[in-house]
Amino acid sequence: MTVEVVGFDADDTLWHNERYFNDTQRAFHDLCARYAEPHATEESLLAAERRNLALYGYGVKGFLLSMIETAIELSDGAIPAAEIAHLLALGKELMVRPVELLPHVEPTVRALAADPGLRLVLLTKGDLFHQETKIAASGLAECFDHIEVVAEKDEATYTRIFARHAIDPATFVMVGNSLKSDILPVLDLGGRGVHVPYEITWAMEHAIAADHHDFVSIADLSELPGVLAAWR
Amino acid sequence: MTVEVVGFDADDTLWHNERYFNDTQRAFHDLCARYAEPHATEESLLAAERRNLALYGYGVKGFLLSMIETAIELSDGAIPAAEIAHLLALGKELMVRPVELLPHVEPTVRALAADPGLRLVLLTKGDLFHQETKIAASGLAECFDHIEVVAEKDEATYTRIFARHAIDPATFVMVGNSLKSDILPVLDLGGRGVHVPYEITWAMEHAIAADHHDFVSIADLSELPGVLAAWR
Repeated sequence: MTVEVVGFDADDTLWHNERYFNDTQRAFHDLCARYAEPHATEESLLAAERRNLALYGYGVKGFLLSMIETAIELSDGAIPAAEIAHLLALGKELMVRPVELLPHVEPTVRALAADPGLRLVLLTKGDLFHQETKIAASGLAECFDHIEVVAEKDEATYTRIFARHAIDPATFVMVGNSLKSDILPVLDLGGRGVHVPYEITWAMEHAIAADHHDFVSIADLSELPGVLAAWR
Repeated sequence: MTVEVVGFDADDTLWHNERYFNDTQRAFHDLCARYAEPHATEESLLAAERRNLALYGYGVKGFLLSMIETAIELSDGAIPAAEIAHLLALGKELMVRPVELLPHVEPTVRALAADPGLRLVLLTKGDLFHQETKIAASGLAECFDHIEVVAEKDEATYTRIFARHAIDPATFVMVGNSLKSDILPVLDLGGRGVHVPYEITWAMEHAIAADHHDFVSIADLSELPGVLAAWR
């Protein structure tokens, strides 16, 4: 089956994201150091993120609220308001970090966008407002035929997107750094996946690689055109 | 020109929203009462919301972060962490409030959805995750041909939605409680608007009514079918 539509994840596939979160998390650890051991801080924050996911969804604002909640918990309510103000400032800093494209992204995406036989879709989850800001700042928005910011990337979401844009899953290739969000649901729907691991994987995105054929892993986007050429 | 597509705003048009925000705001005022005069609390919160809009966008999470920021400011950093934890709890409560449909919404939307000559679009701004949760909880999701959660409802957004769903603005009627977000941009693009004022208008949604013809104001949704019939 040929390839007609290529979907791209955004955070940590097209541009850096987790690296910035990690910087913020490090600052959070420093701030909590006098209240708890590092591993306790890490566990409590992850537990708060998990607990709040059904309420907050993905994105910086929910992360920031979970940091504040965790800091209050770890300090047993002793944390001064000035330190919470510092957390608010850290969150805002994270939101205005410039969009830094990953290596080989720009030429690869532009070349594929210029291919009349391909439609390109940007498919990202997280905070709608922040994602739209980053897409605009990336300079790549015009390369995509469709841009979809979704609350969750699971089979139901991909099915909806396929229907909305008349995409035959058999001709669809999803490119992303998360096995759980970008690759597995697409494979299960009969599509193909190109995994581009990022330097860091968020603890909530870990998944085991499935036993699938329509799947390759590449080091960076410069290898993508070759993979697609082999499939077309 | 006939009517082919009817767009609906969601918050405060299909279901209660601002009323819940107001409850939370009242609790916020109570909490801040020992730090500032009521009008100062109100002004500071609105100023924070305005200042943070470009960073946070619309929605409960941004509102909650602005409340925390304002409380720290008003207390000059003296607010104890337990009170900030109380604010977090207020925000979470707001997020899990049940969806309460406004009068006449359910039968009107169902009847219009059953009309084969009409397409129905739900067009709401705010937090993607929270909006999707509310749409699912409303029980009305299946009435809409398209559901769009957007970061801002301005001319650029409506233009994009019209293109995406092949909507001729001349055949489009937007129904909503906000002149600024639901009515004025649609009128400017050549569409028509039905204003359904809500009992409360958020200070950031105030706009002056424009000098337009393709515009009616109704008391509740029971009057909508009559308006559409006159236009078709």
